[in-house]
Amino acid sequence: MSTENATTTTLLSPQDLLKHWQGHRGLTRRVIEAFPEKELFEYTIGGMRTFAQLVMEIIDLTGPGAKGLATDDWGPKDMPHITGNNMPVTKAELLERWDDTTTELETYWPQIDDFEKSIIAFGQYPGTALSMALYFIDNEIHHRGQGYVYLRGLGIEPPFFWDRP
Amino acid sequence: MSTENATTTTLLSPQDLLKHWQGHRGLTRRVIEAFPEKELFEYTIGGMRTFAQLVMEIIDLTGPGAKGLATDDWGPKDMPHITGNNMPVTKAELLERWDDTTTELETYWPQIDDFEKSIIAFGQYPGTALSMALYFIDNEIHHRGQGYVYLRGLGIEPPFFWDRP
Repeated sequence: MSTENATTTTLLSPQDLLKHWQGHRGLTRRVIEAFPEKELFEYTIGGMRTFAQLVMEIIDLTGPGAKGLATDDWGPKDMPHITGNNMPVTKAELLERWDDTTTELETYWPQIDDFEKSIIAFGQYPGTALSMALYFIDNEIHHRGQGYVYLRGLGIEPPFFWDRP
Repeated sequence: MSTENATTTTLLSPQDLLKHWQGHRGLTRRVIEAFPEKELFEYTIGGMRTFAQLVMEIIDLTGPGAKGLATDDWGPKDMPHITGNNMPVTKAELLERWDDTTTELETYWPQIDDFEKSIIAFGQYPGTALSMALYFIDNEIHHRGQGYVYLRGLGIEPPFFWDRP
């Protein structure tokens, strides 16, 4: 049909998607910073994980995930967010891991040579490189949104959701 | 550089992005369904809006948003999630609006003829058609994640995040 999305056939380059993700990552970092030290590791609602644990999941998916998408080496399966071992115990440590992950993402993302290729992420989740990258990003937004509720539950105003320069 | 995302230059077609969004919308619908009638309209944490109000925001951005992106007619500014007027008062009504919005989205999305065009969404938010569409999707994931915390706070198991057929 002539009216169907006539002039644009493709939307995003890999670089565009990385930039979009990095905007989200900057916001998530500010949400981590907004938590008081103690509550970051202890506060929960309804039996959920702490925000530190949710963030560790994001870290575990982002760094090793980008590496896996680029190299098909998905690393060890006993990641901190699964085993609880090797977890950071201070906000400063968590932020340091966060920043190391940013470096990993920036290193490996440009090496992903085909976003349509079939992969089995972490040896168990089938998809394409693109569907998995979108999953990682969506998962970050999802858990960060939960962090917003934790902050509100603690009486703390979260950063603006739309502020992702 | 020869190693930089060599074989894929573009990632998503408009149809791909719509499909991705619809997967999310199906999940959000199931999260609405998981709420008890009363708590959907009354339960909050930390002074936040109820999940019905958050969902109404998603509805107001998605239907009128898709129409605006396609036609540049952004409709009236006094939307229910802003004024609180014309809000659905039962879960069935909210789901009906949800489904009407799905129809609107499916109608207008194929008519968006240029995702790189500059727009001012709802007469006040500048961006491109693409950046705004991504904002609408991300905003849905964000608020739905908050709904997950509400459900957990109510002792209810939410649908699986990854289940978006």
